[in-house]
Amino acid sequence: MTAVDALSAALKDRPRGFFIAFEGGDGSGKSTQLELLRRRLDAPLVFTREPGGTPLGNQIRNLVMHGPDNIDARTEALLYAADRAYHVATTIRPALSSGKTVITDRYIDSSVAYQGLGRGLGVEAIRDLSLWAVDGLEPDLVVVFDVPVEVGLQRAGAEPDRIERAGKGFHEEVRAQYLSAAAAKPQQYRVIDSTLPVEEVFALTIDALLESCS
Amino acid sequence: MTAVDALSAALKDRPRGFFIAFEGGDGSGKSTQLELLRRRLDAPLVFTREPGGTPLGNQIRNLVMHGPDNIDARTEALLYAADRAYHVATTIRPALSSGKTVITDRYIDSSVAYQGLGRGLGVEAIRDLSLWAVDGLEPDLVVVFDVPVEVGLQRAGAEPDRIERAGKGFHEEVRAQYLSAAAAKPQQYRVIDSTLPVEEVFALTIDALLESCS
Repeated sequence: MTAVDALSAALKDRPRGFFIAFEGGDGSGKSTQLELLRRRLDAPLVFTREPGGTPLGNQIRNLVMHGPDNIDARTEALLYAADRAYHVATTIRPALSSGKTVITDRYIDSSVAYQGLGRGLGVEAIRDLSLWAVDGLEPDLVVVFDVPVEVGLQRAGAEPDRIERAGKGFHEEVRAQYLSAAAAKPQQYRVIDSTLPVEEVFALTIDALLESCS
Repeated sequence: MTAVDALSAALKDRPRGFFIAFEGGDGSGKSTQLELLRRRLDAPLVFTREPGGTPLGNQIRNLVMHGPDNIDARTEALLYAADRAYHVATTIRPALSSGKTVITDRYIDSSVAYQGLGRGLGVEAIRDLSLWAVDGLEPDLVVVFDVPVEVGLQRAGAEPDRIERAGKGFHEEVRAQYLSAAAAKPQQYRVIDSTLPVEEVFALTIDALLESCS
């Protein structure tokens, strides 16, 4: 039995839902790993994302990404928190309640890193805001896909939006925040070196999920 | 010199901005009084409103008012907080900084009443959220236009939106919250009996502004 089969079986057997967040900077390889999981795991899974994991969330995301240039940091953080509140209330909680495994591409740690530290609003303030938005729902496991900032930005390559234009120093702070959050809660977080070949990163990801859900 | 002339002169003489919030339930006559002030006061005034006092805020307001039926209370509160954060950052603070008088149709007390108490999210939680959104900016004066709920709903008369459909008990709670906030801070709040004839309400409004700004 392969590790993928073992994980599929373990997820099917769980009596209650299992909640996983994938985190990492731009170009960290999160999406590639999500796609591999989607194709290879045989279990009741819900794949979702923030921001914009719902139709309303997508409208909110558009306001942030393509809105006026003078959107201030607090407005941005509150819009992301609204997106998250709706996402949790209408997608994540119902799926977990019905025993499914939910994997979200970004969650609270993204806001803590991007708005709390990167935009200078304060890590604690943004964590409190996010936890209030979701009425306390924390992931069972947070997987941080870690790459050096230059590698991530080069990989991302796409058209720069408001956030990518914010510069390299900003991304360095975001990365540091992910690593510090993970170091503070080793039971809940797993950091994976995402400069490794895709299949190696995948194997490490499966290991992390298997260990956490058993 | 009439009271209106005295107020106009006092507002022109102020070295720094003066920040007033008009509050009250649907059909409380706030808008009528705002329009009278706009026509009769001769001073550097900025009239604005929440939600939707900015182009971005208007898009946010549309999401709440005409969005999906399953918008939960937290999402709604966070969207209103985002609208307020942007409104304060881009409209209210700049106007106050340049010495103008700002009169806003609804502010923090509306969220505290409608979301905190009416939607059951908690008065303190919503006040904290709102104060965080505006980085602590409180009005110099809050004028509460008070009418019994049946009078207000009858006056409002317009097509019911999501919020007006919420029912009479909800509006009773909102009214009670306004009155209790005003009772707790008599220096900052003035409650006006808005069942009186329009010109009497206007005279009381002018008195309240004159007393607070001198």
